[in-house]
Amino acid sequence: MRYPEDELVVKAPEGEKIVLLIFDGLGDIPHPDFGGKTPLEAAKTPNLDALARDGALGRIIPVAIGITPGSGPAHLGLFGYDPLELEIGRGVLEALGIGVALNAQSLSARANFATMDAKGIITDRRAGRIATEKTIGICKKLQENIGTFEGVKVEIHPAKEHRFVVVFRGEGLADGLSDADPHREGSPLPEVRATKAGAEKAARVINAFLKKGQEILKNDSPANAILLRGLATPPTIPLFPERFKVKSGAIAIYPMYKGLARLVGMDILKVNGEHYEDEFKTYIENYDKYDYFFIHIKGTDSAGEDGDFARKVKVIEEVDRILPILTAKMPAVLAVTGDHSTPALLKSHSWHPVPLLICSKCVSRDSTKRLTELEAVNGTLGMFPSRDLMKILLSNAKRMDKYGA
Amino acid sequence: MRYPEDELVVKAPEGEKIVLLIFDGLGDIPHPDFGGKTPLEAAKTPNLDALARDGALGRIIPVAIGITPGSGPAHLGLFGYDPLELEIGRGVLEALGIGVALNAQSLSARANFATMDAKGIITDRRAGRIATEKTIGICKKLQENIGTFEGVKVEIHPAKEHRFVVVFRGEGLADGLSDADPHREGSPLPEVRATKAGAEKAARVINAFLKKGQEILKNDSPANAILLRGLATPPTIPLFPERFKVKSGAIAIYPMYKGLARLVGMDILKVNGEHYEDEFKTYIENYDKYDYFFIHIKGTDSAGEDGDFARKVKVIEEVDRILPILTAKMPAVLAVTGDHSTPALLKSHSWHPVPLLICSKCVSRDSTKRLTELEAVNGTLGMFPSRDLMKILLSNAKRMDKYGA
Repeated sequence: MRYPEDELVVKAPEGEKIVLLIFDGLGDIPHPDFGGKTPLEAAKTPNLDALARDGALGRIIPVAIGITPGSGPAHLGLFGYDPLELEIGRGVLEALGIGVALNAQSLSARANFATMDAKGIITDRRAGRIATEKTIGICKKLQENIGTFEGVKVEIHPAKEHRFVVVFRGEGLADGLSDADPHREGSPLPEVRATKAGAEKAARVINAFLKKGQEILKNDSPANAILLRGLATPPTIPLFPERFKVKSGAIAIYPMYKGLARLVGMDILKVNGEHYEDEFKTYIENYDKYDYFFIHIKGTDSAGEDGDFARKVKVIEEVDRILPILTAKMPAVLAVTGDHSTPALLKSHSWHPVPLLICSKCVSRDSTKRLTELEAVNGTLGMFPSRDLMKILLSNAKRMDKYGA
Repeated sequence: MRYPEDELVVKAPEGEKIVLLIFDGLGDIPHPDFGGKTPLEAAKTPNLDALARDGALGRIIPVAIGITPGSGPAHLGLFGYDPLELEIGRGVLEALGIGVALNAQSLSARANFATMDAKGIITDRRAGRIATEKTIGICKKLQENIGTFEGVKVEIHPAKEHRFVVVFRGEGLADGLSDADPHREGSPLPEVRATKAGAEKAARVINAFLKKGQEILKNDSPANAILLRGLATPPTIPLFPERFKVKSGAIAIYPMYKGLARLVGMDILKVNGEHYEDEFKTYIENYDKYDYFFIHIKGTDSAGEDGDFARKVKVIEEVDRILPILTAKMPAVLAVTGDHSTPALLKSHSWHPVPLLICSKCVSRDSTKRLTELEAVNGTLGMFPSRDLMKILLSNAKRMDKYGA
């Protein structure tokens, strides 16, 4: 895919520093049980308020108007990619989510243990939702006995309950594979088929793996079968540090977000600890070494998903309290926003625009006083797709050239 | 055409009900003779005001910024189609406008009676604007004598003054035909040519029709010639109820809007009467049978076209007065907007954004208090193309899936 803006990025990078501070699932809608406020409206945020008074507000659309994004597409947008063009397979996201490193030679799948009867019919797609500890044990047994197929190594990574991740590593593995999953009980386990030319070797390898795996598990009922779906290699991505000519560091606690940042080529910076202030300290320690920092705060999304309005407020307040750690080294361009909305009222991701704050000497300061959904409607940045945000940040950091004479 | 959002529509529709209430040509601009107000600002609308306080506002762009849409493209946008991709031929719109039912085997044309001299030169393209009654009589004579051509039946439908509609029905009729109209006086009547492969039979049939028609009319000067333009078959449209998995009912009085709804596959619900309250009663009667209702109010557009500001205000107030008939069965998602703007000051359709109101538990309530052009600027829904509205309505009705993981 070609991104026209890439040609305008200043070639010899002498620009200024950019920080993108992401509160996952930040956007929200008014909650009737909390005075008709959103968490951002309810939270006491003196430090963010000061930034809002000094900066400009706007709103971003993660993927498209009315579309609810998953974490993968939402972050690709923030990183300047078109999430409708650049798709990340489910298997890849699942592997990133449990912290497995991937490269172009890795083909990943979401996997379930399932129950198969004597005739080869799948009778329970989740093997009675066996406990995570049991899955860890069976994964270990599989890993020790599985061997290799046509030179392809197989990695078995346990996840929660009956779920696990399988990563195939080797030459000649390509995308374009049907699922090894009947998607309903009462049917036999289908073989994997190559749906695109070039995926034939992968199909052969995976079917051989399934046959041997089923053999290894034959006495482990209810977990005596393996289902694979979302078989995918990582997409070929024009790498972020090269596209935008910025030395890029990602600061996150959760594996999924480190994985997404690694996928686009950012350096993953080591965080000593699991608190938000540890993330901010990592920024300070690495300040001199990078041009661009992506800092990810997970708690707002988890609270939204749980429908826990008060906790979402608390996460925002907590980050606000420690914000001076970050702003002690104020970058030339600081953007604060979310990857998508996760309204506590809906207990899920949603399609609502996400409020955005940018502090920089070059923004068109407006009369907004707080970073909230409603104030953001009146910000000078307007409403635009997330994937355009990177251009605005680069321009503010004097890293974009003029288009045409 | 492929619409990516179609893949996200929840497959097993268990979502909630949607009502799209369209005031045709609703949007307007301030009128200097009426205190610098727009009709929506001047109208007393207690019921709409209550909905506005409870819901969220925004603005839709019917086709593209700065483009004035006709009724066809404007409605296609509201129905979730890209009006720049999906073109409806003028002949098709004209046929729909007078209530003629069309299918894939129908080829329609806008037709004029014209005057031809002894040398075959068109001397008046409008046959002296003969009276409608006269056109009705000539159409009847034509219909009775015209016969069929290569098995193709011909229907002659009178319209206003010198205008009528010709529908050819039969196998093998395809789009891609030049006009049988010199588009100026002083030139001979050109034959129809196939401009695309496959339209040869249609061209042959139409030229034979024109020859025989001219023969039938030879003593009817000034209406002794037939001009045809906008020859078109209905577009192949991925049908609305299938795309969006909603059982869909259209409630309209005017033929054009019933025709447009039928074109995308909606059921046309019978309205007993010609008043707006008859339309709302039809909604109540059919409430249990449908997931999605399109309700069309014509009067605002007609008043705008006539430059009659006071009448446009009156139509809005009248519908507001009877709105409780509709809201007695409040759908989970109620959207109120227009297909385009028809400012009374301009006496025509215009390019201005159209104010939009959505009531639903999932909208981001804002501080707006009335559905007006100016308040809509500050609504949380923002400004976006009409064709994205359907995605927002489906998401609010819990009928859309998440994009990516």
